[in-house]
Amino acid sequence: MKPIHVGLLGLGTVGGGTLTVLRRNAEEITRRAGREIRVVRAAVRNLDKAEALAGGLPLTTNPFDVVDDPEIDIVVELIGGLEPARELVMQAIANGKHVVTANKHLVAKYGNEIFAAAQAKGVMVTFEAAVAGGIPIIKALREGLTANRIEWLAGIINGTSNFILSEMRDKGAAFDDVLKEAQRLGYAEADPTFDIEGIDAAHKLTILSAIAFGIPMQFERAYTEGISQLTREDVRYAEELGYRIKLLGIARRAENGIELRVHPTLIPERRLIANVDGAMNAVLVKGDAVGPTLYYGAGAGSEPTASAVVADLVDVTRLHTADPHHRVPHLAFQPDQLADTPILPMEAVRTAYYLRLRAFDRPGVLADITRILADSSISIDAMVQKEPAEGEEQVDIILLTHVTLEKNVNAAIAKIEALDAVAGKVMRIRLEDLGAK
Amino acid sequence: MKPIHVGLLGLGTVGGGTLTVLRRNAEEITRRAGREIRVVRAAVRNLDKAEALAGGLPLTTNPFDVVDDPEIDIVVELIGGLEPARELVMQAIANGKHVVTANKHLVAKYGNEIFAAAQAKGVMVTFEAAVAGGIPIIKALREGLTANRIEWLAGIINGTSNFILSEMRDKGAAFDDVLKEAQRLGYAEADPTFDIEGIDAAHKLTILSAIAFGIPMQFERAYTEGISQLTREDVRYAEELGYRIKLLGIARRAENGIELRVHPTLIPERRLIANVDGAMNAVLVKGDAVGPTLYYGAGAGSEPTASAVVADLVDVTRLHTADPHHRVPHLAFQPDQLADTPILPMEAVRTAYYLRLRAFDRPGVLADITRILADSSISIDAMVQKEPAEGEEQVDIILLTHVTLEKNVNAAIAKIEALDAVAGKVMRIRLEDLGAK
Repeated sequence: MKPIHVGLLGLGTVGGGTLTVLRRNAEEITRRAGREIRVVRAAVRNLDKAEALAGGLPLTTNPFDVVDDPEIDIVVELIGGLEPARELVMQAIANGKHVVTANKHLVAKYGNEIFAAAQAKGVMVTFEAAVAGGIPIIKALREGLTANRIEWLAGIINGTSNFILSEMRDKGAAFDDVLKEAQRLGYAEADPTFDIEGIDAAHKLTILSAIAFGIPMQFERAYTEGISQLTREDVRYAEELGYRIKLLGIARRAENGIELRVHPTLIPERRLIANVDGAMNAVLVKGDAVGPTLYYGAGAGSEPTASAVVADLVDVTRLHTADPHHRVPHLAFQPDQLADTPILPMEAVRTAYYLRLRAFDRPGVLADITRILADSSISIDAMVQKEPAEGEEQVDIILLTHVTLEKNVNAAIAKIEALDAVAGKVMRIRLEDLGAK
Repeated sequence: MKPIHVGLLGLGTVGGGTLTVLRRNAEEITRRAGREIRVVRAAVRNLDKAEALAGGLPLTTNPFDVVDDPEIDIVVELIGGLEPARELVMQAIANGKHVVTANKHLVAKYGNEIFAAAQAKGVMVTFEAAVAGGIPIIKALREGLTANRIEWLAGIINGTSNFILSEMRDKGAAFDDVLKEAQRLGYAEADPTFDIEGIDAAHKLTILSAIAFGIPMQFERAYTEGISQLTREDVRYAEELGYRIKLLGIARRAENGIELRVHPTLIPERRLIANVDGAMNAVLVKGDAVGPTLYYGAGAGSEPTASAVVADLVDVTRLHTADPHHRVPHLAFQPDQLADTPILPMEAVRTAYYLRLRAFDRPGVLADITRILADSSISIDAMVQKEPAEGEEQVDIILLTHVTLEKNVNAAIAKIEALDAVAGKVMRIRLEDLGAK
């Protein structure tokens, strides 16, 4: 059978990895796909830098040369960012080409219009590499768990943050110090905002929520809180109480809508996902039939991401002659079957909480705090008052609450902070059990 | 679009679960699949028992009524065992029907002839539910990791054994006592041989190895050793050395062939898979591009297994109008592209070892043992000699070796057992690092 022709946009970390994997495993991939997947052209920024890697592959500095090339069946978008990625993808679709992309920002932000255009044109747009790198989580959710009503999912989907949190715990180090070390090692970018403030995770969570629940991409409605405010004390206290702190992306079907939130989270240490360390990713999915399932692997990197890109290429190769109606829908659900379930505001979310505050070690303080919580219908699961440090008058008090409404917790925190005996702000970290129930 | 018609063979644990899930999630499944998946008939052993569950579904006690029904597009085989399952599946294929099966024994034993017949007839035979219950591991290996040369995989793929090993560790209990408890709780069958002697795991491993490496099913060549000889002392000693003991199915691409083996295995406790407890399953897969990935979930049970059956039904529904050449091949690789890589005999396997022996506490014993190992080119990674128990003359000696050839270890064990100072047999448990390298 004649080869399928692929054009690459970008030959950086992921593009280079894709070319390398396609070449190294050409024989196995052809044995599986039934036909050769041949890269025929790549668009790059710098011809000189790319030539050694390209090894004879025709190069261009104009990405539209690839998108408009009539010989190309599938365009692989690996340049990242919003523009010109969006324009290139839309033009590829308009030209009747299938698209494979690793661009989570693009999919989270413009996925709805991209998939609508692809649907109208009868082409496929696949994005396995956009979430959790090499872990086939899109395929698992969209096809493997298709029997299930998904109840919730929770993922460690930003390797940089997980690396930083793992180091803070292992070394008892402060956030700023670990961040600097991560930047030195290449685990964090010079501007780490997207990673440490949860924005990258929120892009990926948006994509996961769409295919889990059959809803449109709604990145702008996701609640996003990063890890930059976490202290080493919180990491240690959590550990003493039997928990680990992870930056989780959580999507949950609640009574009146869908919770969509990224924030640091205490997880019981006995959960498998609490033990995912370093730059690795993992997604825990709870389906009504299957129960909890977990998917673990490298969430970034050249060849792990290329693994997902090539899997998409094989899928598209297999399905490109199929009746479009029989293909797996872009968002798991048929395009006319998306639901308009609302995304809940954060105040309407129900979860448990870790609260840490500093208070003067005097009688009545705990009574005041516990009364405020009781008045807000918040019940306490555990409370620890630390010994005051030598020569200090203030002590750390840590409270774990049962599941309650975020709105009530906000109100209670405001009242606690107003107490004379309480110094400064209350540190609030959400807590999820993530058990089978 | 008109519904696709499904006939069920068996309405027991998995069949009942399949019917329940298809009914409860009918709306979501149709939203995903684009058409209704309708069960139109079921074959059962006992009409009276089945009627309540069936709720109006036409029943028959003759499974050939289902297989020969011209209205049925897909036959779901859930009766288990070899016959008449094989005959029914072959007749369904001959009748031009697609087949979904959860029968690992059937696929491991007769998969080659079943897939050849399906190929010739242009129908699909899918078997996601045959391995690791609800975990979409077949899909992950066959499609999600299609870019990779699979280097090895290691799975906890028998829930009963894992439950027993978890209990032995948690409670310090003996194998026989835990087995009785597992039988009482319904985790183990009255005749537990298939589960505890590794045969069930070997069926599943055979299936995984075929799709990982593109080789035919070769169950009869798998090395199979169960957990019934494990003592609570071994479980405890392993723990003291930083390991957990799990019954693993391991398939590894070695220099001269493929290792295919089921046996109790020491795993470093920091590995995620070492922390998979109770009746849960997990499969760790190492691909050359993606690195290690892990898939975790319920490996058995009514609805988890049904989740996999229904996922296969949706896949078949989507692909049944497609050109057969463009479907995912049964064994991941195109049928004319299977490899004849040999399965290695156990003596040619290379792994590390835990050896435990009882010896008289007298001078020169350790020197004799270590000389025997050195003469067999086996290097020692760790050695522990336990204090003799009160009033005993013999002590337990535990050795961990580096990776070496099984044949050499067999020879060394024979020599060690022949030493006057050594009492009884040497306990040998294999040890795998399962790290990223």
